[in-house]
Amino acid sequence: MPAMTDLPLDPFFSGPGLDRADALRADEAALRELARSPAARQLRWSDGLPLLTPEGRLDWGPPLQPQLFLGFADESPRFSAIEPVTTDARSAFGLMALLDLGDAPLFAAALSLTRWHGRHRFCANCGHSTAIVRGGWSRLCAACSAEHFPRVDPVVIMLAENEGRLLLGRQPHYPPSRYSALAGFVEVGENLEAAVARELHEEAGIKVRNVRYVASQPWPFPSSLMVGCHAEAESDELTIDAAELEEARWFTREEIAFALSGAADAAFQPPPKSAIARTLLERWLAS
Amino acid sequence: MPAMTDLPLDPFFSGPGLDRADALRADEAALRELARSPAARQLRWSDGLPLLTPEGRLDWGPPLQPQLFLGFADESPRFSAIEPVTTDARSAFGLMALLDLGDAPLFAAALSLTRWHGRHRFCANCGHSTAIVRGGWSRLCAACSAEHFPRVDPVVIMLAENEGRLLLGRQPHYPPSRYSALAGFVEVGENLEAAVARELHEEAGIKVRNVRYVASQPWPFPSSLMVGCHAEAESDELTIDAAELEEARWFTREEIAFALSGAADAAFQPPPKSAIARTLLERWLAS
Repeated sequence: MPAMTDLPLDPFFSGPGLDRADALRADEAALRELARSPAARQLRWSDGLPLLTPEGRLDWGPPLQPQLFLGFADESPRFSAIEPVTTDARSAFGLMALLDLGDAPLFAAALSLTRWHGRHRFCANCGHSTAIVRGGWSRLCAACSAEHFPRVDPVVIMLAENEGRLLLGRQPHYPPSRYSALAGFVEVGENLEAAVARELHEEAGIKVRNVRYVASQPWPFPSSLMVGCHAEAESDELTIDAAELEEARWFTREEIAFALSGAADAAFQPPPKSAIARTLLERWLAS
Repeated sequence: MPAMTDLPLDPFFSGPGLDRADALRADEAALRELARSPAARQLRWSDGLPLLTPEGRLDWGPPLQPQLFLGFADESPRFSAIEPVTTDARSAFGLMALLDLGDAPLFAAALSLTRWHGRHRFCANCGHSTAIVRGGWSRLCAACSAEHFPRVDPVVIMLAENEGRLLLGRQPHYPPSRYSALAGFVEVGENLEAAVARELHEEAGIKVRNVRYVASQPWPFPSSLMVGCHAEAESDELTIDAAELEEARWFTREEIAFALSGAADAAFQPPPKSAIARTLLERWLAS
């Protein structure tokens, strides 16, 4: 079985990003000192998204409000303020197309983390307000002592294959002629393979076997972990769930290759390069 | 690449469990009617865990307080009340050893779901109390309209291999001589492969390459999604993080085979069969 890192195309937002230095998070005095050091930098934001330089790198300024300790990059401690964030993926696709690959994991971490703080200022256990602890990597309730950690929501996203064709679908909010891989949140009490089978059955009415993992990607809108899979469909008869999908269709290898080549008269418009659905399609074509 | 379902040993708690019938969840009238139907059954609990029959099946009674709609099994709608749950994995291992494999995913779903409700009665966004909606699959805030879904927390758990030996570690709370796979929560902004590399570096000081997915398992203490991986360690020199591990060591194939055989004088006591760490070891031995 080839390891994923041997394959040519890694998903966007994957890779180590920076040194998270998690052992430092609980040391408040050390973090205060780091924030005062001359090397400290704070992420700059604009319109609810991290600001980029003209070269597509994350843009850093002085540590004026270092609420979140992101970690170290180039021996410099990196911080962020908690920013009001309402941006969705659609309005961020343009920026993501410019973003340097090496900075993408940090972009994702900062965006998910700051958004989580904005939506989790109170204790889910007792309703009391909570305070930032661990350099911004959790929140603590002074009333009931519950500690709350940032959410990471696993999502399965998958290509179902039947006789050499792939199943792709359209959600109502997609741009015209865009088709992409079907996806859905993993629920409690199921593993990845069971979630893939359930989602394909719910959304497209197909039964699948031989589910296999392909690649994964953090997706910061707001804090998904996209787990990309492949599955064999037992038949090609579809029953579409209209509440989830506007349409779903089987596409041939030729149609997919043509669409990924960027041809204007392709059968569909593929997902953007920052989406793991695109990675799944490109790897399938290369396989 | 062989699909995981071809391999002999699936992790405990994996498999489809029951038909979740998620399209019904938003239909309150339909759920009320289902709960009144003669076929309706409610999960019975005892001491914070689902109650088992002498045959190891989940035990069901009349729907006296059908707060959570779990789905359908054998054409019977299945419900649960929200139970006070404080049980940890250690006190549940005995019960899990008796639990029927086919009922295990539902056991996990019911346990995670009821525990989540117990700890999430208030809105993290505004502090107001929330109400059960979608048959228990989310909670809605009447004050700010935020909807909150049950957490599923992805955890990577991995075998690092170096020259035919595997790295296993001991946490301080383990039973005597127990060693198991290293593990840690996936954080925002990282994918599964990056999380595996970070955790092994943090906890054991090793660098790894060729991370690959092996299998996954829901783990209801309280609501983890365990993602089992394998990685190649670039060296065998260890720097143990004493805050996470009491000890970590490399074990030979012979030592592991002997330990899994249940020998009393084995080099270590392996994790129980319900833990995916055991699956990872058994699959590695079989590979």
